[in-house]
Formats: sequence, structure tokens, C-alpha cells
Amino acid sequence: MSTSINHIGVLTSGGDAPGMNAAVRAVVRCAIFHDMKVTGIVEGYTGLLTNTLRPLNTRSVSNIINQGGTFLKSSRCMEFYEEAGRAKAAEKLHQEGIQALVVIGGDGTFTGATLLAREQKIPVVGIPGTIDNDIYGTDFTIGFDTAINTAVEAVDKIRDTATSHNRLFFIEVMGRDAGYIALHAGIGAGSEEILIPEQHRGLDYLLDSLDRSNRAGKTSSIVIVAEGDKSNSVLELAKSVEEKLPEYSARVTILGHLQRGGRPTCFDRVLASRLGVAAVDTLRTGSSGVMVGLRDNRISLTGLEKACKETPDMDPELIRVSNIVSI
Amino acid sequence: MSTSINHIGVLTSGGDAPGMNAAVRAVVRCAIFHDMKVTGIVEGYTGLLTNTLRPLNTRSVSNIINQGGTFLKSSRCMEFYEEAGRAKAAEKLHQEGIQALVVIGGDGTFTGATLLAREQKIPVVGIPGTIDNDIYGTDFTIGFDTAINTAVEAVDKIRDTATSHNRLFFIEVMGRDAGYIALHAGIGAGSEEILIPEQHRGLDYLLDSLDRSNRAGKTSSIVIVAEGDKSNSVLELAKSVEEKLPEYSARVTILGHLQRGGRPTCFDRVLASRLGVAAVDTLRTGSSGVMVGLRDNRISLTGLEKACKETPDMDPELIRVSNIVSI
Amino acid sequence: MSTSINHIGVLTSGGDAPGMNAAVRAVVRCAIFHDMKVTGIVEGYTGLLTNTLRPLNTRSVSNIINQGGTFLKSSRCMEFYEEAGRAKAAEKLHQEGIQALVVIGGDGTFTGATLLAREQKIPVVGIPGTIDNDIYGTDFTIGFDTAINTAVEAVDKIRDTATSHNRLFFIEVMGRDAGYIALHAGIGAGSEEILIPEQHRGLDYLLDSLDRSNRAGKTSSIVIVAEGDKSNSVLELAKSVEEKLPEYSARVTILGHLQRGGRPTCFDRVLASRLGVAAVDTLRTGSSGVMVGLRDNRISLTGLEKACKETPDMDPELIRVSNIVSI
Amino acid sequence: MSTSINHIGVLTSGGDAPGMNAAVRAVVRCAIFHDMKVTGIVEGYTGLLTNTLRPLNTRSVSNIINQGGTFLKSSRCMEFYEEAGRAKAAEKLHQEGIQALVVIGGDGTFTGATLLAREQKIPVVGIPGTIDNDIYGTDFTIGFDTAINTAVEAVDKIRDTATSHNRLFFIEVMGRDAGYIALHAGIGAGSEEILIPEQHRGLDYLLDSLDRSNRAGKTSSIVIVAEGDKSNSVLELAKSVEEKLPEYSARVTILGHLQRGGRPTCFDRVLASRLGVAAVDTLRTGSSGVMVGLRDNRISLTGLEKACKETPDMDPELIRVSNIVSI
Repeated sequence: MSTSINHIGVLTSGGDAPGMNAAVRAVVRCAIFHDMKVTGIVEGYTGLLTNTLRPLNTRSVSNIINQGGTFLKSSRCMEFYEEAGRAKAAEKLHQEGIQALVVIGGDGTFTGATLLAREQKIPVVGIPGTIDNDIYGTDFTIGFDTAINTAVEAVDKIRDTATSHNRLFFIEVMGRDAGYIALHAGIGAGSEEILIPEQHRGLDYLLDSLDRSNRAGKTSSIVIVAEGDKSNSVLELAKSVEEKLPEYSARVTILGHLQRGGRPTCFDRVLASRLGVAAVDTLRTGSSGVMVGLRDNRISLTGLEKACKETPDMDPELIRVSNIVSI
Repeated sequence: MSTSINHIGVLTSGGDAPGMNAAVRAVVRCAIFHDMKVTGIVEGYTGLLTNTLRPLNTRSVSNIINQGGTFLKSSRCMEFYEEAGRAKAAEKLHQEGIQALVVIGGDGTFTGATLLAREQKIPVVGIPGTIDNDIYGTDFTIGFDTAINTAVEAVDKIRDTATSHNRLFFIEVMGRDAGYIALHAGIGAGSEEILIPEQHRGLDYLLDSLDRSNRAGKTSSIVIVAEGDKSNSVLELAKSVEEKLPEYSARVTILGHLQRGGRPTCFDRVLASRLGVAAVDTLRTGSSGVMVGLRDNRISLTGLEKACKETPDMDPELIRVSNIVSI
Repeated sequence: MSTSINHIGVLTSGGDAPGMNAAVRAVVRCAIFHDMKVTGIVEGYTGLLTNTLRPLNTRSVSNIINQGGTFLKSSRCMEFYEEAGRAKAAEKLHQEGIQALVVIGGDGTFTGATLLAREQKIPVVGIPGTIDNDIYGTDFTIGFDTAINTAVEAVDKIRDTATSHNRLFFIEVMGRDAGYIALHAGIGAGSEEILIPEQHRGLDYLLDSLDRSNRAGKTSSIVIVAEGDKSNSVLELAKSVEEKLPEYSARVTILGHLQRGGRPTCFDRVLASRLGVAAVDTLRTGSSGVMVGLRDNRISLTGLEKACKETPDMDPELIRVSNIVSI
Repeated sequence: MSTSINHIGVLTSGGDAPGMNAAVRAVVRCAIFHDMKVTGIVEGYTGLLTNTLRPLNTRSVSNIINQGGTFLKSSRCMEFYEEAGRAKAAEKLHQEGIQALVVIGGDGTFTGATLLAREQKIPVVGIPGTIDNDIYGTDFTIGFDTAINTAVEAVDKIRDTATSHNRLFFIEVMGRDAGYIALHAGIGAGSEEILIPEQHRGLDYLLDSLDRSNRAGKTSSIVIVAEGDKSNSVLELAKSVEEKLPEYSARVTILGHLQRGGRPTCFDRVLASRLGVAAVDTLRTGSSGVMVGLRDNRISLTGLEKACKETPDMDPELIRVSNIVSI
């Protein structure tokens, strides 16, 4: 392993996810472990354009591993979508002597990073940080494990309440395009039904399933709905079911942004630590334009462009398990 | 203290609340401590009419103090609203040799209990169990402390997420007629604004306040909304604000029934234990038609009828504190 | 209400307690609400001697209400025990134009505050912040509610494990001189036995009680031990019981400092907000040398000296409840 | 896939682990999904000898997925270590018409299962359920993820407390022979030092490391100690360090059995659901004497005997990560 990089930058971008702080901490400490300098770029790509930089040392990242959110802040940066913006960012990096970049985020973040690497010849390595787990090239994204636990804890509380007869609980979880949170949280929470965008099973399917549950002796049912599944709001879905099955009384919970927050789980912290170390190691080998991920429990590299373009498959084994355990 | 009661019944009724199990446990163990028999009535007043009874001993209530919900189940019983239903219930109690009743619930539960005591001459003592804290005669109802902690934990997680500029978070909490959950959770969560039915401050007030917050340098704001405050759904409130203040982007969380669940807090368990013991003690003195509550940190009795009719006042000191700490 | 105070200082001292941040926040915002300046003194009285001061505004205390510990840091300051140290501190306050002080802490903190007020004529108001709840003049100290919930959650987890026959769990909680944490957490956790320094019941009592539990059909028992109760370590207590009752297998948990941490409960945050506002209000009336507390659910003042010297009584009702519900 | 098995038994044995209930639920529902009968055997192998059996249907396993412990109870059965005991157990299974067995537990459980399968020709499939993660043939055992989160939450609380200078916190976690909990929890909690039985680094190493931390500017340090690492109790370790480094003040927390309890994490519930389904699927293919595990994120079979005899390796990448992020 040889490298001439001795100063790297690190940023978090896009929607924040629990565990991003742990990833930044690992990047910083691994860089310092290898005698490199590290600069934190505040508010994602925006910080490069507004010159909001922050030198980081091992103490700067003390006591943040257990904090949700991202202490470097995040944003979506419109100017960076233009080549001129990226050129300006590259210039800024040159000025500061920052030779390479670790970017932590999701699809949008990686699209920008791909262009920065290709157009501006800045070595960039990506770390998948998003609660949605919808990035190709890694079995888990940072923040996903925390988000599904948050959702499951919410459903646990709902399950505690008096199991009145004919009560339906609808819980909307995040996932505009991907049903991973809904599928994992639905299995974990023991929900009766899971509605995800990948399947778009529709109202008739749901009515049919609830009817079967009812006949199987279930006195109340919990339905997990991914944001992206419903043609309209979960409130309207609940209303439609109440109209069609008047013996049911429906109650709605919308978890919203509380799924983004909370202290990261141990899994997310360990994952973030591994990926942060791997990202710096990868830059040191001279690689660029790749994402570090965890596949089959091992560090694995994927081209950033591929990570953006491809979509990970829903595991059919998991869908089968979900169907079996909810009978 | 003298009493000829040697067999009591206990039931939970209405909406369930965390800590109800701790109250039943204390009722059972205090009765047995005084060599009385105890019968659990399942599903509230319904169990008296359907004859769903369960003899209880000290072991029956082991390992339930930490469980949410109510293991005796709860219901709202229509038949009990009629005198004929109550007469049937009283007959059932006589048949079983149950000489007195401890009922755990809220307003509706106590209305039934008042009539059972007055019409049917059944000695009854009430214990306030509802997350809403809206019962006259007690500073705290069982379940309230757990519910406000659940709400605060949810807001904490939302606060963790990247503090993007001009982001508004609306969190709907329970409280159809009473703003206690919203007021306490709002102070506890450090929310910028609290909307409660007692004040009905309206959209203009909110817009004005957000504008002030904005000028004071707050980059994002959290608004707690009690169900009962809004003329229409919190989703529409959020939409209205976005229309009037287009620089803001609003996000909505509806906590719904998850506030009813969860393991009870220590406060609720200790409160429930104290009130359960006090209820049995009160029956033993020959009293009936009263509710045991906690006022000024001491056990206190209030007529059940008064407990139903009167409404506790919002503490003006607390409203003032809420206004000061949210500047 | 009239006052000429327009600049106050605030500090936290002694062992930290969850909710101290919420109290500082309320002090700061209430002062600013009344157009006063506020300076934070870092690391308690030490900061006065080392000149570690920090001007505070409403934004300085944003997003801290939900954090454990104290962002102003805390310490025990030896130099402040000497009159010379206190004179130096007073001089520093004069130099900075700080006319009055709010101190948040326990007995030791208040002893220093009493002397500062009496000797150096600095107006001082105290706020009780300690997890031990052992301060005379308030029903609750800031941090107590969080600590008992932390202890109860720990015991809940232990209770979850397979209820093997003849298993004894000893859990040591904080409380060197006072058994409040043990008493409340013991009732809340449904423990079979509670050992507190106020009672020093001894090994024979415990053996006798365990024997009775065993005969009553309890297959496993949970014993809460306050630090201050035991003549020697809880590990030795467990060993002694195993020797005398060889049919039992004992397991020990020592919670230690984890009881000091964690996000404050809603109760502690509301309490801290109320006391923080009350402290500033009290200074503005011209009072000094007093502690603001909550008695009978109302703000109440107690002389600082009295708060230090007297010890609050164990509530006999609570001890009776504890004995009844553990049968 | 063809099978003539139409009645299976399921049991949990050895130390209980969070998620065992989710595994039993999945076994039951998958069996019923395939029109098989299921019998629960209470208290592990003991239930076979004492004839404590319980027919299970889909409703028997409702509302248990979120509960810690095991509702089928567990035990260590001495009689089963003898061939005569196992013969008796096999006879019992024949009498009841139970044709095959799913056993959930750790090494001890699998040793018994191996012999039952080989000697008594009972088809048996094992599911790894233990918080220790020390089973060969699976990347994760059921309960491990929950246990490391419990440990990390405890350390988070300790980290919250005032970062006094020269304070050392020792936290003992479970792991008599294996350091997996300590390693993962140590990385997740951001501890300064991790002591595990696999390394036995000793007191001198620790003193040296603390000295380096101190010089690197760390004001307080957190040391995670696996039970099995220390030649004597963690209390004595703390005392030794205080003697050698008198500038430090040491505080000890022993988590003990609280790591076994608590609601299982989503990860453990999903893992348990997958393994439960896989175990029944495996029995239906006619396999026996194997354990179902998760390797490289896929269901994988390992001979039960091999699962007992081999020890999984500590991942050197994880140890390297741990060394880097704690600088």
C-alpha cells in the first residue's frame, strides 16, 4: 500500500442518518493514525462553496459516537449540481491542500461525488449513510438498523395497548421508493401486514388479508405502510378500510422524522467505524470513485456510479419469511 | 379501622393506561395483606355482565408491574349505561359474594361507578387511570407520566436530525379536550410552540410566533399540537403554514396510540402502588363513592361525582414557565 | 417586584445530575426574558477562581434540554472551602459585574453558597440538583426521577431472564447516606426486598425474608441494595447469602455511575424548568441565601443553611406501601 | 422437498437470550404453514423428562415477539447428560407422536441434541440462541445484538456524566470465554480500552495504555472488561489501577444479568424469524443433526457436532478497527 495523500476532507450530505458521527470519527482517527491531516467540511458540499471548513483532530470527534444527526451538519446543495459549482469546489480543495475526499450520504451525495472525481480529478471515496438501505453494493447502510429499531419500538408500544376487538393500527414508516424499513420493521414488530412500494398490493389485497386475519381469530391488526406505497395518505387508506369494513375501527400513527433521529444502535456504530476506517484505507491505496460497503460481512468496494444506478434487490427469502410468520 | 368486607372485585375500564397493572397488583396484594379475597373482573364492566371473572392471588400479579396495557383487559360497556345493566351487574356481584369494587379508569368509568354505588348500594372506590391527566381531585393520573415521556422521547429524536434551516416539525400528541400532555411534553421537549384546546390560539398566532422565532435566529422549530386544538387535522395545519410562510418546509409526526403503550415509568408504578393500597384501605374504612388521588404529594379522597363533573385547572405557573423557557 | 440586578451568574457544582442543563437553560432564558445579562461559570466554583467564564444567550442553551450531564461542567472545589477562596471568588464576580449567583447542586454546593452569601454579601439562590433526593425543603431534586427510572429499567431487564428456580439477584443502586433511590426504584421494580441505610436491617433479616418468599412460592427474588446499607460490598453480601442458603444461586449487578447519566425524564426537565425560572424570580425580589424547591406541587423557599442541615424524612406511607406490595 | 414429518417439538435450553421467543414463534408458524402439529416442551430437556408439554398454535405465539426471556422457559438438565435420560426423552417423544425436534440454545444444548440425534435417532435441528455469539457456523447468534446494545446504552449513560479529570470507568460485560460482547460493545461505545479473554493483555498493558490516553489529552477513560479476561474481579482490577496510578479515581459498573434481558432488537427478531423458518424447512428436507445459522447474510447449515467443537475466530479486521478508532 503506497500513497502520497497527506490531507483529506470529510463531509456528510443529504438526509442525515444516525451513525454518521461514528463514521466521521473513524475517518478522522484512521487518517490521524496514518499521520494524515483531516479537514471537516460543514453542511456537505455547501461548505466547500461557502468556505466553512473545520480542522479536525482526535479530540474533535470525542463523545460524538453516541449522538444522532451529524455534527458536521448536512444539506442538499443546488449549486453543486452544476459543473461550475463543482469546479469551484475543486479549486477550494486545491487552495486548502485537501487532496482527497470522503463523502458520507446516499444516492444524491454519490452522484455529486462521481462527477467531482471524474470531471475534477479529485480522489473521492463514498460511505453509504442513509436510513433507507437502498444503496447497491452494501448489505447495510449506516442508519438503517437504528431506523428499524425506532419503528419497532413504536409498534411495540402500540401493541401494548388493550387488545380491543376489531381495532386496526396503521403505522406509516419512511421509504418513498424502497420498502426495506417497512419489511424489516414489519417482521420485527410482528405486524399482520406490510405495504411496500415494490409490491403495490393495493386496497383490495389489504381488505382480503384483514378479512382472513379476522377469521383466523386475530382481534386486532397492525399494518406497516411505507410512505411510497400509498397512492394517497395513510389517513385516507385508513378511512377507506373503515368504510369497507365498518366492523373495524382504525387508528393512525405517522412516525415521520423521528425515524431519522435517536442514538445510533451498536450495529450502526460498528458498521460506521468499519466503513470509516475502510474509506481511508481505500484512499491510501490510490483508489477513487468507489464506495466502501459491507457485503457478506466483509468490506467490499463498488463503483460509485454503479452504486447510484443499480437498485439492490428485495431479498425473496425475507419476503417469504415475512409471509410465513404473519399467519 | 373496622370493616366487614372480606371479598372485593377489581376492574380496569375505558382507555388503557400504563401503570394500570401496577394498580391492580397493589389492590390485590393489599387485599390479601388484610386477609381479603380478590376477584378480577375481565374487560371492565363487561366482565360482570358476561361473567368473565378470575380469582386473583399474590402470584397472579407477579411480573406485571413492568407491563404496559392492562392484563385484566378493558372495554367501554354500552349495556352498563342503562340501569338494567347495572342492576344485572350488582346481582352478579352478590352471587359471587363480591362485596365491594375497586374501579380503575377515567371519567366514563367513574360515571358508571357513581351510579353503581348510589343505585345499587355497592361500595365502590375509584382510582384515576388515564394518560390524559384530566381528572379533578388528583395532581397526577396513572399513565400520564409515561405518556409525556413517550412524547418527549419522540421529539428528542426529531431534534437530533440535521437542523436544516427553515424546517418546521409538527408533532400531534393525545388530548382531545385537555392539553396537559401537550403542555408538559412541550416544556420537557423544549418545543418552540404548544397548541392546546384550552387556548385555541389559532393559525394567526402561530404564524406570528414562528415569525418571531425566525427573527430570533432559530433555524428550525418544533410545534406540539394537542389533538383537540386543531379545527382540522395537523396535516392541514402544516399545509396552511407552508402556504403562508413559503420559506418554511413542514414535516408532520402523529404519535397516536403509541402514547398509550410502553412500560410504565417508575413514577407511574409508585403512584399506582400507592393508590392501589389506598383504595383498599379506603374500602376498609367503610367509605364508598370516592376516588383516591394524590394531592400535594399525599393521598386524598374526592367524591366520585365531583371527580367526574369538575375539571382540573391548567396551572398558570406552568403556562408562564412554558412561555419563558421557549423564548 | 423590583430589582436592580441586571447581570447574574449561573453554575453547576458537585456530582452532576440529569436535568441540570434544563435548569441552566431556564435560568438563562428567564434572565433574558427580564432583560438581564447572564454569565455561565464553567466547572462550578472552580471557574470563578480560574476565570473560566462564558457569556450565555438564548441560543447558547438551545438543544441542551435533552442532554444528560451538565454542559457547564462541574467539579468539587477545595479552594472554595477556605474563606480566602471565597473572597477571591467574590472579587472576581465584582470585576465581571456579576451581581448575583444561581448555584445548582447538592449539600456541598449549598454550604459554599451559604458562606458566599453571608460572608461576601453576594446574593445567591440555590437549585437542588442531585440524583439522591436527599435535600430538605423540596419533595424532588433534579435528577432523582431520571435515576430511579434508570434503575427500574435495569431491574426490568433482569426480571425478563428465565425465571429459574432459586435464583437471587442483588442490584446495588446509589445512595451512600440516603435510601430514596432504593426505596422508589424498589417499589417501581417490584423487588422482593429493599435494603437502605436508614433501616440497616442486616443479614439475618434478609435471610428470614428470603425464606418467607421461598415458602410463599416465589421462584426467584430481586433485592435492591443501597450503597450505604451494606457493611461491606454487595458481592460479599451475595456470598454470605449463598453460604447460608445454599439452595440459592446469587447474581450481582452494580449499576454505579450509569445512574447519573442518560437523557433526563420529562418530569426532571419540567421540574428543572420551573425551578430555574423560580430562582431568577427569587433573585429579582431581593431574596438571597435561599433554595427554591417544589413542595406539595408548588414552588417553595427554604433557607440554604436549613436545606443543608436538615434531612428529609423517609415517608412512612411509602415504606408501608413497599412492605405491602412485595408480599 | 418431501417429508413425512407431521408433528414437531420445540424447546429452549441453557441460558436464555432475547429473541428466543421470536424463534419459537417462527418455528410454530412455519410448521403450521406446512400443516404440521407443534408441541412446546417447557423448561428445555427437563420438560421431556417431567412431561411438561404444551400444544402450540398460531395464537399461542401472538404478542411474544417483543418479549425478552423465553415463554417456554429454560433450564440446564443434569439427567439429560446421561444416556438413560436421553433414552427416556426419546421414548416420551415417541409416545407423544413428536417425530422431530427444534432446539434453541448454545453449546450445551447442541451437545445434548447431537447425542439425541445420533443415539436415539431423533431428527434434530439446532438454532443458535445465546448472547455470547460464540457458536461456530453462524455470524450472529440470537440475542447477541440485543446484549451489545444493552451494554452500549449503559456506557452511553456513564459517558454523559461530568467528564471529570482523571476519572476511570470500568464496565464489566458478559463473556466468560469469549470477548465478542466486549469487542463489539467496546467499539460501539467508543471505549478507550477493551479487555477480552482471547488476548489477556494484563495489568501492565492497561497501565501503559491509560498513560498514553492521559498524555493524548483524554480527561477520562472507559474500559470494557469481559468477565473472562480478569484473573480476579473487576473491583480488584480497579483497585490495582488506582494503586499504580494514584492520580486516577476509578468507578466500577457490573452489568451482570441485565444483559440477558430487555426487548430484543429488530435485528435479533428478524434473525430469529429467519432461523426459525429455516429450521423447519431443514427438518422437512430430511436433514438432522445440523444447526441453521446465518453466514454471509445467507442461511447456512453446519453439523451440530462441528458447531460445538469449533470456535469462531475473532475477526482481525474488527480488532484492527477497534485499535484505530480508540486512539
